[in-house]
Amino acid sequence: MAARKTINASVNPKGSLETLSQREVQQLRETGSGSVYALFRQCALAILNTGSHSDNAKTILEAYPDFEIRILQQDRGIRLELFNAPADAFVDGEMIASTREMLFSALRDIVYTQSELENKRVDFGSSQGITDYVFHLLRNAHTLRAGAEPKIVVCWGGHSISTEEYKYTKKVGHELGLRGLDICTGCGPGVMKGPMKGATISHAKQRNVHGRYLGLTEPGIIAAEAPNPIVNELVILPDIEKRLEAFVRVGHGIIIFPGGAGTAEELLYFLGILMHPDNQNIPFPLIMTGPSSAAAYLEQLHAFIGTTLGEAAQQRYSIIINNPDQVAREMAEGIKAVKQFRREHNDAFHFNWLLKIDESFQHPFEPTHANMASLKLTRNQPVHELAANLRRAFSGIVAGNVKDKGIRLIEQHGPYEITGDRDIMQQLDTLLQAFVDQHRMKLPGNSAYVPCYQLTK
Amino acid sequence: MAARKTINASVNPKGSLETLSQREVQQLRETGSGSVYALFRQCALAILNTGSHSDNAKTILEAYPDFEIRILQQDRGIRLELFNAPADAFVDGEMIASTREMLFSALRDIVYTQSELENKRVDFGSSQGITDYVFHLLRNAHTLRAGAEPKIVVCWGGHSISTEEYKYTKKVGHELGLRGLDICTGCGPGVMKGPMKGATISHAKQRNVHGRYLGLTEPGIIAAEAPNPIVNELVILPDIEKRLEAFVRVGHGIIIFPGGAGTAEELLYFLGILMHPDNQNIPFPLIMTGPSSAAAYLEQLHAFIGTTLGEAAQQRYSIIINNPDQVAREMAEGIKAVKQFRREHNDAFHFNWLLKIDESFQHPFEPTHANMASLKLTRNQPVHELAANLRRAFSGIVAGNVKDKGIRLIEQHGPYEITGDRDIMQQLDTLLQAFVDQHRMKLPGNSAYVPCYQLTK
Amino acid sequence: MAARKTINASVNPKGSLETLSQREVQQLRETGSGSVYALFRQCALAILNTGSHSDNAKTILEAYPDFEIRILQQDRGIRLELFNAPADAFVDGEMIASTREMLFSALRDIVYTQSELENKRVDFGSSQGITDYVFHLLRNAHTLRAGAEPKIVVCWGGHSISTEEYKYTKKVGHELGLRGLDICTGCGPGVMKGPMKGATISHAKQRNVHGRYLGLTEPGIIAAEAPNPIVNELVILPDIEKRLEAFVRVGHGIIIFPGGAGTAEELLYFLGILMHPDNQNIPFPLIMTGPSSAAAYLEQLHAFIGTTLGEAAQQRYSIIINNPDQVAREMAEGIKAVKQFRREHNDAFHFNWLLKIDESFQHPFEPTHANMASLKLTRNQPVHELAANLRRAFSGIVAGNVKDKGIRLIEQHGPYEITGDRDIMQQLDTLLQAFVDQHRMKLPGNSAYVPCYQLTK
Amino acid sequence: MAARKTINASVNPKGSLETLSQREVQQLRETGSGSVYALFRQCALAILNTGSHSDNAKTILEAYPDFEIRILQQDRGIRLELFNAPADAFVDGEMIASTREMLFSALRDIVYTQSELENKRVDFGSSQGITDYVFHLLRNAHTLRAGAEPKIVVCWGGHSISTEEYKYTKKVGHELGLRGLDICTGCGPGVMKGPMKGATISHAKQRNVHGRYLGLTEPGIIAAEAPNPIVNELVILPDIEKRLEAFVRVGHGIIIFPGGAGTAEELLYFLGILMHPDNQNIPFPLIMTGPSSAAAYLEQLHAFIGTTLGEAAQQRYSIIINNPDQVAREMAEGIKAVKQFRREHNDAFHFNWLLKIDESFQHPFEPTHANMASLKLTRNQPVHELAANLRRAFSGIVAGNVKDKGIRLIEQHGPYEITGDRDIMQQLDTLLQAFVDQHRMKLPGNSAYVPCYQLTK
Repeated sequence: MAARKTINASVNPKGSLETLSQREVQQLRETGSGSVYALFRQCALAILNTGSHSDNAKTILEAYPDFEIRILQQDRGIRLELFNAPADAFVDGEMIASTREMLFSALRDIVYTQSELENKRVDFGSSQGITDYVFHLLRNAHTLRAGAEPKIVVCWGGHSISTEEYKYTKKVGHELGLRGLDICTGCGPGVMKGPMKGATISHAKQRNVHGRYLGLTEPGIIAAEAPNPIVNELVILPDIEKRLEAFVRVGHGIIIFPGGAGTAEELLYFLGILMHPDNQNIPFPLIMTGPSSAAAYLEQLHAFIGTTLGEAAQQRYSIIINNPDQVAREMAEGIKAVKQFRREHNDAFHFNWLLKIDESFQHPFEPTHANMASLKLTRNQPVHELAANLRRAFSGIVAGNVKDKGIRLIEQHGPYEITGDRDIMQQLDTLLQAFVDQHRMKLPGNSAYVPCYQLTK
Repeated sequence: MAARKTINASVNPKGSLETLSQREVQQLRETGSGSVYALFRQCALAILNTGSHSDNAKTILEAYPDFEIRILQQDRGIRLELFNAPADAFVDGEMIASTREMLFSALRDIVYTQSELENKRVDFGSSQGITDYVFHLLRNAHTLRAGAEPKIVVCWGGHSISTEEYKYTKKVGHELGLRGLDICTGCGPGVMKGPMKGATISHAKQRNVHGRYLGLTEPGIIAAEAPNPIVNELVILPDIEKRLEAFVRVGHGIIIFPGGAGTAEELLYFLGILMHPDNQNIPFPLIMTGPSSAAAYLEQLHAFIGTTLGEAAQQRYSIIINNPDQVAREMAEGIKAVKQFRREHNDAFHFNWLLKIDESFQHPFEPTHANMASLKLTRNQPVHELAANLRRAFSGIVAGNVKDKGIRLIEQHGPYEITGDRDIMQQLDTLLQAFVDQHRMKLPGNSAYVPCYQLTK
Repeated sequence: MAARKTINASVNPKGSLETLSQREVQQLRETGSGSVYALFRQCALAILNTGSHSDNAKTILEAYPDFEIRILQQDRGIRLELFNAPADAFVDGEMIASTREMLFSALRDIVYTQSELENKRVDFGSSQGITDYVFHLLRNAHTLRAGAEPKIVVCWGGHSISTEEYKYTKKVGHELGLRGLDICTGCGPGVMKGPMKGATISHAKQRNVHGRYLGLTEPGIIAAEAPNPIVNELVILPDIEKRLEAFVRVGHGIIIFPGGAGTAEELLYFLGILMHPDNQNIPFPLIMTGPSSAAAYLEQLHAFIGTTLGEAAQQRYSIIINNPDQVAREMAEGIKAVKQFRREHNDAFHFNWLLKIDESFQHPFEPTHANMASLKLTRNQPVHELAANLRRAFSGIVAGNVKDKGIRLIEQHGPYEITGDRDIMQQLDTLLQAFVDQHRMKLPGNSAYVPCYQLTK
Repeated sequence: MAARKTINASVNPKGSLETLSQREVQQLRETGSGSVYALFRQCALAILNTGSHSDNAKTILEAYPDFEIRILQQDRGIRLELFNAPADAFVDGEMIASTREMLFSALRDIVYTQSELENKRVDFGSSQGITDYVFHLLRNAHTLRAGAEPKIVVCWGGHSISTEEYKYTKKVGHELGLRGLDICTGCGPGVMKGPMKGATISHAKQRNVHGRYLGLTEPGIIAAEAPNPIVNELVILPDIEKRLEAFVRVGHGIIIFPGGAGTAEELLYFLGILMHPDNQNIPFPLIMTGPSSAAAYLEQLHAFIGTTLGEAAQQRYSIIINNPDQVAREMAEGIKAVKQFRREHNDAFHFNWLLKIDESFQHPFEPTHANMASLKLTRNQPVHELAANLRRAFSGIVAGNVKDKGIRLIEQHGPYEITGDRDIMQQLDTLLQAFVDQHRMKLPGNSAYVPCYQLTK
């Protein structure tokens, strides 16, 4: 690959980390030069590449082998020194404002988080401790705004979807924005970008300059995908489970667009929580939607939920085909009910304290072959626990498909063995096969998909 | 055509006309219900259709035959009552904020202007009087902002261009926005939209929420083209000449993209002014640019200027092929010089008082056959006067091509006869033929172009 | 008197007149250098002395005999050149921001007004024409703010009052400010300053940084009294009657504190309007208040109103003795009713269009001996006309007491002769005598008061 | 004393503590109901009495014996429940905004600080640890604003001074405010209020709505003195030494007005730091000033410094008699040098990291008789250490004069014995005697001052 234009630069904090104590800077510097350096470097490179439309992150990492980033301590506070950074992140020698913000968001969330952990301030032993941890990370990122009206719509779905589906997500985002709603996604391309793009235009039409485009990610994801440039608040949560919890604590409603195993994981996570008996009366609008061409896909997902989690689970969402206007109207209505409920129960608008999240949803799931094999995918357990286990199954498949660690495990030990009740396995098989057929399991353009799993019925 | 969804509504002023005296309201009501009603109705309908992407204005007028708009007087001030208005302009029964703003901008500029004229407050007898009139219209529209840095880039070019050219204008707009520059166009589609769209994204990247997207139009144009939805300041000048003067008085630099006869008219207007001896030392960056595919086109235009106005005219602009970054950098540099000059000469940043505009450029040109035939297109006159006459020739051709009045004249009397020096006529012929060949004379997709002119060499 | 420190300076517009056309600047320059120069110079000098606490305006005029102010035209717009200006208006060579604002407010209101008049745009022949004129002056001064909640409390009373009365006005202002109300006065010292000072503190306590301190004055007054430095919006109306109309059109409630003949003039003006049959149902809170020591004074005024205008007039106000808290609470309640009424009748919040002001209240009253002698102060006329005439009587007495022109007339022709019904004359005599006894007729410290009037019973 | 009007109310956070985690609320509730309840209640009562002008805090505590304040936990966050609170803190049932802010500042600083301590997050073992602690408290209070220009002037001096001295502090504050400078004081009456009051007026004159009036206090002080109502940022540091460090870390210049032993303590603290060899080249403007009547007082202080700390110490300040304008000009100049220095040394504008503060200045001094007796007040030590010990001597005298604990110790054991070099003792004696003669040792109006110390020469 041809050499890229690079630049050396030195940047001061913007938006985050502007006032640090000397000790904090020192800690950041030590942590950031040590164990987490590789991770921080990788994320920084992805962020510096935000402006570029075309490339995927892998290529980028290879394109800038000499890139280095150093944390400097000076009396004033912190400063980042960059060497051989992508020139596209700069205009006439000055770093683009949003890139600079995101860079310090990454420093804040990756390095700072690490130093929090080292100081052992987090209580991982209790559900409340983990929730508090998520709360602190979000507050530290200025995501929680006291007094702001409930209006954050989480959009989930694939990062690699058809043009028709992508256009549909833009239309839905446009309609949401017309109604003053903000967008929160995983901050990458595809469904993570479309609704933000649509809302950007409609927020402008409504003369709303305070539109929020919240991107919640985690190190494994951001390192692989440059955040899309519309994101104006970036938060990097430490792992998949904290990120999922962040979505449901700050979101006031959720829309699910077409996607693959990752989207199924998100849906099961969320339904598992909604099905918890404690959450029975908590309003939380959930809409599954797509263009006409996605109708069959949504039907399959719906059937899968029906068979595995039952009709009660199906009651928690509505399915809307090819009607962006209706999606936005129902969402706006649903969020009104959320606001009413929070007010009556004295719950904060900015954090959904009342939502019960079982510890089984909070702890990281390590997708080893042993863990995958011992997943309990049977009916003789409460529905929300089955949902938690199905969630883990999909999480493992995502890892086996695209994550470094998972791929290596599969290479060493062959596909995961997954067992469970016969009909559940059958449904799972059907759904996964559909994902494969619709090219939802990996980026299109790659060679034929070889499953990383084997279902034993 | 199928019936469209319509809505009845009543809206209060937003952005303009919020504080009117009772007498002013009464005047508006009288004027607006009388002679200018048809014009106001037509513009209002175009604006109400801003949200719709697909249709051209003609179709829209036919699609809403029952649309009516009435100006109501109440003690509080003014109110507009709408009947059978396009439902797309509303979200859940409430008019979209930008549409409401533009609606009152139209009321302000069309009806208010008319009542100013009726009160005979304008001195059309002198160049300064006309300039003052333009100034007052712009100030009344809050376009003139004391103290704002020079950063308005006027983008001229065709409203119907190739996809490649359109994408190029977006890229240029993106680079301009990265450097903090604002965009001013004729507010329609094509070149009038592309740069605004590009700048919207880059302003967001630079966390600049004060980006201005200024649309300057005139009744004949806005009635035929819905303003694009990015425009956040709309001003309707009373005629072509006032609109052209507004462009060069508020703009700090000008970029010319590919276009047809209208674009040639704009270029000649501007060069005619720059060639005026009084303006010799006034800096005013002018860049002609396009993608590689437009190189030949730009070369032709360049040659035409060389032959007709000479090398000195060619010195006033630079041509940049397929390099958005360079365009933006040169423009930013050029505007720095403008700022320096204005400061040194104590001229306002918000209005280019020092630029001399000859009366021959200020008075409306009526494209009758007699006027077209008597245009003096010969060398025995100062260059800036030749430019003024060439400008009129193109203005007439535009009218003959697309404007109601012009088309009817051509139908009655056949093509315009245009005469002049042999080599000028030859160059003109070549240029016009190139426009025809490149489908720049009319919307593509129509039947073959039949020239509305005949050149006598 | 010792020479004062002076400074030469050149200042650009701030707050007003920032964007003028060249023709407007030229007009301003011509008008401002001509007939109205003396007036403008005098007002400018008063304003430049705002910072100084101790002196009265007369002394100041004498202290700066060499002061000059010139209006410069430059391409950018207007500039003021000052020679031998009071050094106190500057800090380290730069003019204090509020002084600069007020200076351009004066230029706007005095010179601009004059040029409006010369252009004959005002229709003084009808009541509506005059009201429109007042509206335009206020709008031009940005006093009318669309959408702002009704909260302007007009405070009337003497500029020279006892320390106890002054402290009381501060307390009332403090209580008004605590309730989010703004203050509008005649912008001088005494009652014109106290409520503003009190509200400044309470607005700060309520973290309200948008508090308005509106000063409405006229050339005769401002030339004699430097505006107090708290005023953050200064408007100079052309004469007493326009100023009175401005007070009642922009105010949402009125408080009358102790004062002399001027205060009586204001009270009678307002009651005369409220007593007009057309205004019977318009809510407009009016409170007369003072400290315990002012109880007798308020009682006298109340009795005078009872005898002359009758019980119905007394119904339009309430009297509150020594209870700032109650004054503010009643005013806040009253303004709520005003808001409700305006909403129901679709009247603007920023201008009281519905209030009928008879032409007899709008035309300037010239206090010649003949006019004073022919005032009809008898019962055989509608109450609001009697009020209008009594208002004129007090207006004449104010002129005879303190205004240049009036003083000269008295010196030439002796005291005014005022005649009327016996009991009205008697009440008038009692009231005026009380004013004299309480030192309310002139600044204390002067020699004994010699009446400028003679009542014939 | 007569019963006061009281009110029961429930208030939500404003300005502080708006987004707390459930665990934080719980901790606050536990801490706030436990050991620190008495302290919090006392401070809250002082704050609720801010509006009242006349009373001292002691009287207030006695006037509201039934006052109670409870911290409530609800899902949304925290809420305070008040019983029998002073009615003056409310307007028509709603708490005054600034009072509400200060109440939550107190909760934040008192209770939160306590819970930080309990969690043992502070490293009191090192100088840097203590500085970091002060930094965290200030950052937590949003006092540190990245990017704000250096403009905080600390004003020290007595809380009980003569009317002439008070007026002088207002004039100095007025001149500082005219130059855009902000005020930081101990937040009580006297010198702590005067400069803020003066600056309020001049900030308004300069149309500066962002003026900061920073009050730094500690529990022992705020409990005894209601904060003055102009303070718009209140921070309660945990003890005298942290408060003194906060002053010199956030202030960009210091002005010392007349005062008593407390002021001498502050002066010695600051000179002790400036005399540290490491601080030799750090610019930090220090001005001692007062009206003409205070000239003798300032001369005595100057002489005392000369004799004890030497001429080098005298070089670090200038003395200006009766010239507010000059004080402000010199301060503005000095702060320019500070800005220049910080920029060159890459030090933060918002926190003076480079200033070396020896641990001897950071640890609380316990004014027992033993500690006072063993103070080393001799010349055989570095000057900055002598300053530290003299500072402690004055600190002890302040405690013996006015603080509960100190007064009780004196009652039990008689006056403190203070020994040291003969000439130092002599100077100390002279200075203290002057303070006594000028009624600077205690609130005037009390009985004759009985010294709480005895100097052994």
